[in-house]
Amino acid sequence: MTTEFLTVSPTSTAGDTLDLIRRVGGGKETVYVIYVVDSANGRLKHVVSLRELVLCERTSPVTEIGSPRKLLSVGPYTDREEVARLISKYDLLAIPVVDKDQRILGIVTVDDVIDAILAETTEDVQKFGGMEALDEPYMEISIPKMLRKRAGWLAALFIGEMLTATAMGYFEGEIAHAVVLALFVPLIISSGGNSGSQATSLIIRAMALREVRLRDWWRVAIRELPSGIALGLFLGSIGAIRILLWQHFGWYDYGPHYLLVALTVSLALIGVVTFGSLTGSMLPFVLRRLGFDPASASAPFVATLVDVTGLVIYFSVALLLLRGTLL
Amino acid sequence: MTTEFLTVSPTSTAGDTLDLIRRVGGGKETVYVIYVVDSANGRLKHVVSLRELVLCERTSPVTEIGSPRKLLSVGPYTDREEVARLISKYDLLAIPVVDKDQRILGIVTVDDVIDAILAETTEDVQKFGGMEALDEPYMEISIPKMLRKRAGWLAALFIGEMLTATAMGYFEGEIAHAVVLALFVPLIISSGGNSGSQATSLIIRAMALREVRLRDWWRVAIRELPSGIALGLFLGSIGAIRILLWQHFGWYDYGPHYLLVALTVSLALIGVVTFGSLTGSMLPFVLRRLGFDPASASAPFVATLVDVTGLVIYFSVALLLLRGTLL
Repeated sequence: MTTEFLTVSPTSTAGDTLDLIRRVGGGKETVYVIYVVDSANGRLKHVVSLRELVLCERTSPVTEIGSPRKLLSVGPYTDREEVARLISKYDLLAIPVVDKDQRILGIVTVDDVIDAILAETTEDVQKFGGMEALDEPYMEISIPKMLRKRAGWLAALFIGEMLTATAMGYFEGEIAHAVVLALFVPLIISSGGNSGSQATSLIIRAMALREVRLRDWWRVAIRELPSGIALGLFLGSIGAIRILLWQHFGWYDYGPHYLLVALTVSLALIGVVTFGSLTGSMLPFVLRRLGFDPASASAPFVATLVDVTGLVIYFSVALLLLRGTLL
Repeated sequence: MTTEFLTVSPTSTAGDTLDLIRRVGGGKETVYVIYVVDSANGRLKHVVSLRELVLCERTSPVTEIGSPRKLLSVGPYTDREEVARLISKYDLLAIPVVDKDQRILGIVTVDDVIDAILAETTEDVQKFGGMEALDEPYMEISIPKMLRKRAGWLAALFIGEMLTATAMGYFEGEIAHAVVLALFVPLIISSGGNSGSQATSLIIRAMALREVRLRDWWRVAIRELPSGIALGLFLGSIGAIRILLWQHFGWYDYGPHYLLVALTVSLALIGVVTFGSLTGSMLPFVLRRLGFDPASASAPFVATLVDVTGLVIYFSVALLLLRGTLL
């Protein structure tokens, strides 16, 4: 925000205003937008652009210049993303910041907004990568400072991911009986993480652009549920084909029950990818609802959530299908 | 780009130019920047802003208005990110697009740039999530179309991730001997993916902001190598403490060689996290070098690369430390 802006009283004419710009405009951040302020109570009444001033007669009163329109302004605590959105939507060169009595405190110009958008994007990309925003250029931040920004989330994700060791421990007996099941663990859980990461990136961005609001969660869910099933069927088929091909050509022996193994992997993939897509798309809503930044729903965060559940889904399918044969 | 801009000849004065704006400015996209073009060969000679015109004497020749400065322009094929960067860096309201003979083809205004930055960010976030950019709002794109944008990368990652099944198959004998090793597979490989995702998001963004260029790869590598080792030591310690605590309180029995298991997991974590940080930070450089968009180095892409190598690192450490005891 800058306080270097020009104001005129409602009784001024276009000519007066142009003369004022000529006199004092050199020292102001912008002269492209001039604010008409009530001299008695300091309230913002009207806005004229330099373009309008130049195009009209010098004798026109400033209050009659420009088409009548809603006076756009923001409050001192408005989020910078919201300010950027307004300036971008209405193609403004500046937007005034006013207090609750409509008194002008300063203005935000379009070049401040570009800087703000670039900074915001950097923050969001870094958060989505699973860390705190650096707030300094990568090559300039000191390594200890950068490590602090990375270690926190890395440790939190690690501790969350420890639940996979617990889940695997729970199924240790099954793994000992059928080691073949362990082979597909990374493949299956990563597929859940990948589909979740896709869904999360879509929703975080749609939220940032205000395409999706908190109340739209169920609209998103009814899009992601069939999408997840379709993507799961697709990956499940590739997985089954992989196992059958390898078995057929003797590249790997999945044992006499390879058909059941292939079916287990496929069904688990359908379940895991569906769950991943749903979880990934709902996580930003949950975070926003709880008052957190939805952009904290990083790819690694979603992957961690889905890894633990993915294991449970996989081994549950295995228990159902393989009891009496492999298990 | 718009072709709705104002040009004047080098012989005009500030007064002539203001009169021209008054006459035809109403129909132009912007009147805030006026281009001085040589009438003989059509070349762009000078740029004046409406601010400068209003502040100077009406009789000043346009070519003498404004401080002498480098005439900033872009070519017709300049990347929109580069255009945004120039407009933002020099706080411009518009930048001219010129051909190789310095003839003006059009201008890009600051509000076009904001729209372009927002669209570019959406693309980058979606790519980083591991998919093709949608190019349409999430709630408006048809589900089949969205599935096509997601299925391609999902299948590619799935096929890459199949190598984990191959790697696990290679170590099947070891897993059968020491099922306890299988328990930590998701924990270890996900830690590599998470640290890789952090490094990738940092480098992709630093590249987009031109903080890091292709030739800086080794500078990044010598930052990421010690960072990876430090983060690996940190996670390795948490992992060892977890195993020792669970063993000590009898929450899980890792067998008589639990100390060796803890050491294996810790050393594997150091290796995997270091490898993840290095791979994650180098992948955008490799992609750019090969002519691809470095933003395609998504979190799932890095995770897939690191998962396969992570397994090899883990089982190699296990073979080294556990031969003669568990293996």
